[in-house]
Amino acid sequence: MIDNPYYSPAVHQDYTLVSIGALDLEEGGTLPDVQLAVRTWGTLNEAKDNAILIPTWYSGTHQIWADAYVGEGHALDPAKYFIVCVNQIGGGLSTSPHNAEDAVSMSKFPKVRIGDDVVAQERLLREHFGIERLALVVGGSMGAQQTYEWAVRFPEKVRRAAPIAGTAKNTPHDFLFTETLNEQIWSDPGWNGGEYASNSEVADGLTRHAHLWATMGFSTEFWKQEKWSALGFASKEEFLTNFLEPYFTAMDPNDLLAMAWKWQRGDVSRHTGGDLAAALGRITAKTFVMPISEDMFFPVRDCAAEQALVPGSELRVIDDVHGHLGLFAVDPGFIPQVDALLGELLASPAD
Amino acid sequence: MIDNPYYSPAVHQDYTLVSIGALDLEEGGTLPDVQLAVRTWGTLNEAKDNAILIPTWYSGTHQIWADAYVGEGHALDPAKYFIVCVNQIGGGLSTSPHNAEDAVSMSKFPKVRIGDDVVAQERLLREHFGIERLALVVGGSMGAQQTYEWAVRFPEKVRRAAPIAGTAKNTPHDFLFTETLNEQIWSDPGWNGGEYASNSEVADGLTRHAHLWATMGFSTEFWKQEKWSALGFASKEEFLTNFLEPYFTAMDPNDLLAMAWKWQRGDVSRHTGGDLAAALGRITAKTFVMPISEDMFFPVRDCAAEQALVPGSELRVIDDVHGHLGLFAVDPGFIPQVDALLGELLASPAD
Repeated sequence: MIDNPYYSPAVHQDYTLVSIGALDLEEGGTLPDVQLAVRTWGTLNEAKDNAILIPTWYSGTHQIWADAYVGEGHALDPAKYFIVCVNQIGGGLSTSPHNAEDAVSMSKFPKVRIGDDVVAQERLLREHFGIERLALVVGGSMGAQQTYEWAVRFPEKVRRAAPIAGTAKNTPHDFLFTETLNEQIWSDPGWNGGEYASNSEVADGLTRHAHLWATMGFSTEFWKQEKWSALGFASKEEFLTNFLEPYFTAMDPNDLLAMAWKWQRGDVSRHTGGDLAAALGRITAKTFVMPISEDMFFPVRDCAAEQALVPGSELRVIDDVHGHLGLFAVDPGFIPQVDALLGELLASPAD
Repeated sequence: MIDNPYYSPAVHQDYTLVSIGALDLEEGGTLPDVQLAVRTWGTLNEAKDNAILIPTWYSGTHQIWADAYVGEGHALDPAKYFIVCVNQIGGGLSTSPHNAEDAVSMSKFPKVRIGDDVVAQERLLREHFGIERLALVVGGSMGAQQTYEWAVRFPEKVRRAAPIAGTAKNTPHDFLFTETLNEQIWSDPGWNGGEYASNSEVADGLTRHAHLWATMGFSTEFWKQEKWSALGFASKEEFLTNFLEPYFTAMDPNDLLAMAWKWQRGDVSRHTGGDLAAALGRITAKTFVMPISEDMFFPVRDCAAEQALVPGSELRVIDDVHGHLGLFAVDPGFIPQVDALLGELLASPAD
């Protein structure tokens, strides 16, 4: 267990740790006491039918949702909805390698799957909040993976789904890209097989990891148009040095690796013996599949192929030259598009 | 100086080493005795107007041109043309860090620019072959960079130009991608500041380097369609282990770094004080700009923007799901497209 001040309310805004007890894992083994870091907005109505769930993405937390997506004037409006953002296992705020009890900490942390997160979230919602059905599940990237998993695993519980910039079954290219992220960490001698004393010992690997995000996380056009200048940076080098590098070097390497392992293996067709069409065919949620136009590793083409397998779904592309990391909502046009789409989806009839 | 058996006729087919003497470099310093590895096909006619020049790409040599692009039935037909492929400085066969004389070998190898290669090639063609004008310059990737440099630096000497899958001015995204390739080498303790005893000491870094090529060199769709299976591999893992990894780990790290430095800084607007339109406006060669449809780091969009600045040029996109490394000509449809385009270009009137 490592004390990493990055994973704190001071950095990530308020959240509550809720214990859901022991969690048996798909890959075997048990996480003895899973604490989920939960942020909520709004009030659950008496019918308990106004709940929205937001699962989180790789390296992200509820914070970005608080900062950019949720609030008055947004589709995710706390005046109407009870919005629950649950930080994923391994994400650093919920139970994760760096903060788990000694028996399962650091290199001893077991393999966790997207399905484990969704089972944990369902238990949290049911036991802690009494929520049996969700008006909407919405998430980006790994949050989209969890959204699909929800819609396939618990079709009767998900009335609407909005997977943004992510897939139901991870692609081979995406697997390989994620592996190159991992390799930046593994190749740092400071990683020491996962038994470093501080994330700072893996700073070199985390820095290289940040550089891979620079080339694949944004689009070629982001760099060509020097979009970093609108974010207040004087050069692309400064954008790397003062934004991407500090962003990732603050994080815990084992936490990132735990999320990456999960991300690489996201696949709803595990429910149907590998038949993706059958798995997506189970979905009864009204679904908007929302890729980002310039995403280099969850390209529109891959998302559209899955959307075609979801009954009654619609492909709604978000236009953003920032690429995958457009999810950070830095483009002035991004959130208005998300709000319009989620607003339309929430206004749509659903079973 | 290191003896690396990869850089030999046994691996790369016949070539001739031609000394062009000392070369003063744009960045300062001098390469004392530049040896260019040259492969020719066909016969120079009496008018000396049937010569075609092929400069090489990063990590590539004349071999791929011999194997796939040049020969009877191809546009690059030795029965009609005298075809000269000149391996780039730093490429491993010509003067390069690993084979240079001690004063400039390994970490002491000076910075070489695209312009230095083109000056060396022009000297070779003029002094060794008596060639003053070229019917065509054609190259892929870094070969395209050299093609543009030729057309801008020596417009009167280039009648036709075919830059394939490359740019006249390297893009910022491309610079960053190349830097991540370099970082895989630099981060290997075996690299030792460039003073390793054998490339095998840098095998880990070269392996990671190969993995980055897997994700950016091919397209997302290449992996999704499992195009590696048509190449005789049983899985994507085997494709990495038995093709990409051995391909790159055989190479010399300093040689790769020398090429990468050059690649990152390719920019014909150095001739015009940074004015790319002015530089490309100098071109008098009949030019076909030939990006590959699924190229992830020389995307069609970037190539088209430059093409629009070349007088009388045409954008001719090569359709290939393999992406940038479609240059290896593994798709059955690739060479027929190249042959058709180069055939049309060679048949076009040119000054």
